[in-house]
Amino acid sequence: MKHTITVLVENEFGVLTRVAGLFSARGYNIESLSVAPTLDDTVSRMTLVTRGDENIIEQIEKQLNKLIPVIKTEDISHMVHLEREMLLVKTHSNKEVYTLIDEYRAKVVDADSDTYIIIELTGNADKLNGFLEKISPFGIIEITRTGPVGMRRGSKGFAIE
Amino acid sequence: MKHTITVLVENEFGVLTRVAGLFSARGYNIESLSVAPTLDDTVSRMTLVTRGDENIIEQIEKQLNKLIPVIKTEDISHMVHLEREMLLVKTHSNKEVYTLIDEYRAKVVDADSDTYIIIELTGNADKLNGFLEKISPFGIIEITRTGPVGMRRGSKGFAIE
Repeated sequence: MKHTITVLVENEFGVLTRVAGLFSARGYNIESLSVAPTLDDTVSRMTLVTRGDENIIEQIEKQLNKLIPVIKTEDISHMVHLEREMLLVKTHSNKEVYTLIDEYRAKVVDADSDTYIIIELTGNADKLNGFLEKISPFGIIEITRTGPVGMRRGSKGFAIE
Repeated sequence: MKHTITVLVENEFGVLTRVAGLFSARGYNIESLSVAPTLDDTVSRMTLVTRGDENIIEQIEKQLNKLIPVIKTEDISHMVHLEREMLLVKTHSNKEVYTLIDEYRAKVVDADSDTYIIIELTGNADKLNGFLEKISPFGIIEITRTGPVGMRRGSKGFAIE
C-alpha cells in the first residue's frame, strides 16, 4: 500500500540523512520526497511517499519519532486528505500540445515559439501521468516533478502545539 | 551563494542517503530537496538547494558524479534557467484572502465555506514568500511547500544521452 508521510523536523545538521537512513535500513525505498522550510526558520517539513506493509510503516514512524530532531509525523494516507504535485515539462510547441494545455488547465511558463515550451501542471499523480502520456507522442525533451505534498482536509492543522 | 543542483540517479537502494550524506559530510545543509520519478521507472531526478562556497560546491558535484547510481548532475544556478515551487496553505476564508488569491492567480483546491480554505500557489520563492507574508495576518493554519524544481531555458534537455 502507498503511504504519504509528513514529518516536521528541526533543521539540525544531517537530519535528512538520518530520516532517509531509517527507511533504507528496513529495505524500504522512498519513492518520492520533498523537504522545504516552514514559516519557522528552524523547522522544515518533509513529505515522503513509500510503499509497504502497514505494520512496518508504523514501526518506521515510531522510530522516526524517536529521533531527536523529529517534532511530529503523520501518515496522511489514513486521513481524508489532499495530495498535489507540480510537474514541469519541456516539449515542442504545436497546436495539439496547446489543446492539451487548455484541456488540463496547464500553464506555459517559458516558450520560444519555434523551438520549445515549458509547461507547468499541478494536480494529483494520475492527472500528471495522464498529461505526460498524452503529450509524449509530440516528444518530451525534459521533465522534472516535485513529488506530492499534502495535508488533511478540514480546519485542523499539523503544526507544533 | 545559493545553488540549485539537479541530479539524475538510478533508483538503487539507499541512493538518497548517500547523496544527502555527501553534503552533510562537508557540513553543508540541504535547504530544500525534491526527489521524484522520471519517465524511466529506473531513474529519479533530484533537485537540491544549498548555499555555500563555489569551490566546495564543485567538489561536492565531483564526488556526486563518482557515486555509481549517479548518472548526471547539473548546477542550474550557472545557467539561464527557470525555477518554480508549489505551496499549499490552509487558512481562513474571507474577502481579503480571496482578493489576494485573485491578485496572485492562486487556486483554491479545497474549501469549507465557514471554516477553512486550502490555497495552491506556484512560482518562484519570492512570489511564494510574498503571498505568505500578505495572508499571515488572517491566520495560517498549515503550510507545505515542495521546494523548487527547475530546468534550463532553451531547447536543450537534461536527459540521459
